[in-house]
Amino acid sequence: MSNRHDDRSFAALDGVRFPEFEPGTVWLVGAGPGAPGLLTLLGYHALTRADAVVYDALVGTEILDWVPQGTILEYAGKRGGKPSAHQSDISTRLVELARAGKRVLRLKGGDPFMFGRGGEECQTLAAAGVAFRIVPGITAGIGGVGYVGIPVTHRDTNHSVLFLTGHDSSGTVPAGVNWSAVATAAPVLVMYMAVKNLPDIAARLIDGGRAPSDAVAIVSHATLPEQKVVESTLGGVGALAESGALTTPAIVVVGPTVSLRQDVGRYVERMGVGRVG
Amino acid sequence: MSNRHDDRSFAALDGVRFPEFEPGTVWLVGAGPGAPGLLTLLGYHALTRADAVVYDALVGTEILDWVPQGTILEYAGKRGGKPSAHQSDISTRLVELARAGKRVLRLKGGDPFMFGRGGEECQTLAAAGVAFRIVPGITAGIGGVGYVGIPVTHRDTNHSVLFLTGHDSSGTVPAGVNWSAVATAAPVLVMYMAVKNLPDIAARLIDGGRAPSDAVAIVSHATLPEQKVVESTLGGVGALAESGALTTPAIVVVGPTVSLRQDVGRYVERMGVGRVG
Repeated sequence: MSNRHDDRSFAALDGVRFPEFEPGTVWLVGAGPGAPGLLTLLGYHALTRADAVVYDALVGTEILDWVPQGTILEYAGKRGGKPSAHQSDISTRLVELARAGKRVLRLKGGDPFMFGRGGEECQTLAAAGVAFRIVPGITAGIGGVGYVGIPVTHRDTNHSVLFLTGHDSSGTVPAGVNWSAVATAAPVLVMYMAVKNLPDIAARLIDGGRAPSDAVAIVSHATLPEQKVVESTLGGVGALAESGALTTPAIVVVGPTVSLRQDVGRYVERMGVGRVG
Repeated sequence: MSNRHDDRSFAALDGVRFPEFEPGTVWLVGAGPGAPGLLTLLGYHALTRADAVVYDALVGTEILDWVPQGTILEYAGKRGGKPSAHQSDISTRLVELARAGKRVLRLKGGDPFMFGRGGEECQTLAAAGVAFRIVPGITAGIGGVGYVGIPVTHRDTNHSVLFLTGHDSSGTVPAGVNWSAVATAAPVLVMYMAVKNLPDIAARLIDGGRAPSDAVAIVSHATLPEQKVVESTLGGVGALAESGALTTPAIVVVGPTVSLRQDVGRYVERMGVGRVG
């Protein structure tokens, strides 16, 4: 502990030797679930060094206030009525900026590799010979769900947890999923982008062996001031989704740890979610 | 973007209104996989405000250099020949410190709720009426694995990923796991604390329907300078584990995204892992 000092400030980190952000390289940075305080120190360091930031449709946008004014800021996600940028166009743009000698920060919601399509961008960069670095982020399915007092694992209930995306690139329930295996492999299931297809997914899980009485929580805008939790059951959640009562983006959790929120959640929520939560 | 400024320093964060760490409360903070740069901003803020830090056996200890000298620093994990602190003793100590009016930071490796036993500590705190907050961390099974160029999900290969712990509290393979479901529910499996029981686990996965030729990567000390990756197959990894060739702590990944490391990993590793990587 000989290196401990008594500087209780963020300024103390300006003297730390973070990895150098070299010109002509791309850093893929996970922004976390929404609250800007859940960005990593390394991610913040990258924001302060980047020449260009190419960002997705983030759940929380306050993090963009930390992109310095002199930095190129480009939007690469879907917003309003505009069509989504094609993945290949985004990857091509990253290569273009890197080849122009920029320090390119690719900012993605959550973690770049957790249903984030970071792998595709890496493959394009690798094929173009552009060096890159991965800076992981907090994924909403763990950190966002934890924020409302639902542990994804708990000693008494589960030694495994399964994460699933609720739609594929065409918007439908992913093909090739073994639903009976999914239903029974792990007591806790965490689903991303699943609200639209929830009636279908819930029915498949019940067909696959889950009980209609299984607890379900839908956590929307996790970690942000507008964070909201709706509790239901696997048998009831399909109708809830059809009624339009669920807001998105949301994570859907199925399983016994949902009930821990009764003990844990009231404390967590009592603490509130701050501006930079 | 009207709030953008041009201050490219960590010092700029000293003016940000992070949530107040109130005396008599406990914050459960995920330290991330090892590299101190993967701590969140909110986690760092908590370190600078805490009166007492109670920490586990962390994979990386450099983060402890950021605990100010005036802060109580207590170890609550297993180290050397000493027996592990009992979970109930740790939880009791957190309550004791909080009741003494301290701002108590409980620092846990990875994420508090991802095989981290945070739920148990929350239950004890809730039962004692002690208010607490969850500050998520990067889990090694996503961020540590991503650091070596293995995405846990990839569009072409998997819409689901299953996380599993390789031993229960008694050190044996967890009972009650449906191995055939685990084997077939998700193309990618990520296992924590699985090296010791790997011969047994690999055999169960093959019995459950996985191919012996399935790619396996064992990532030890992820995100730290001593980070190491060993690649094998499900049929070969048991003997590898028995030979003592695998170092721990490690994450074991099974599935098709392991092969993406051939494209992606050489770039990621070329960038190096810095002191605060």
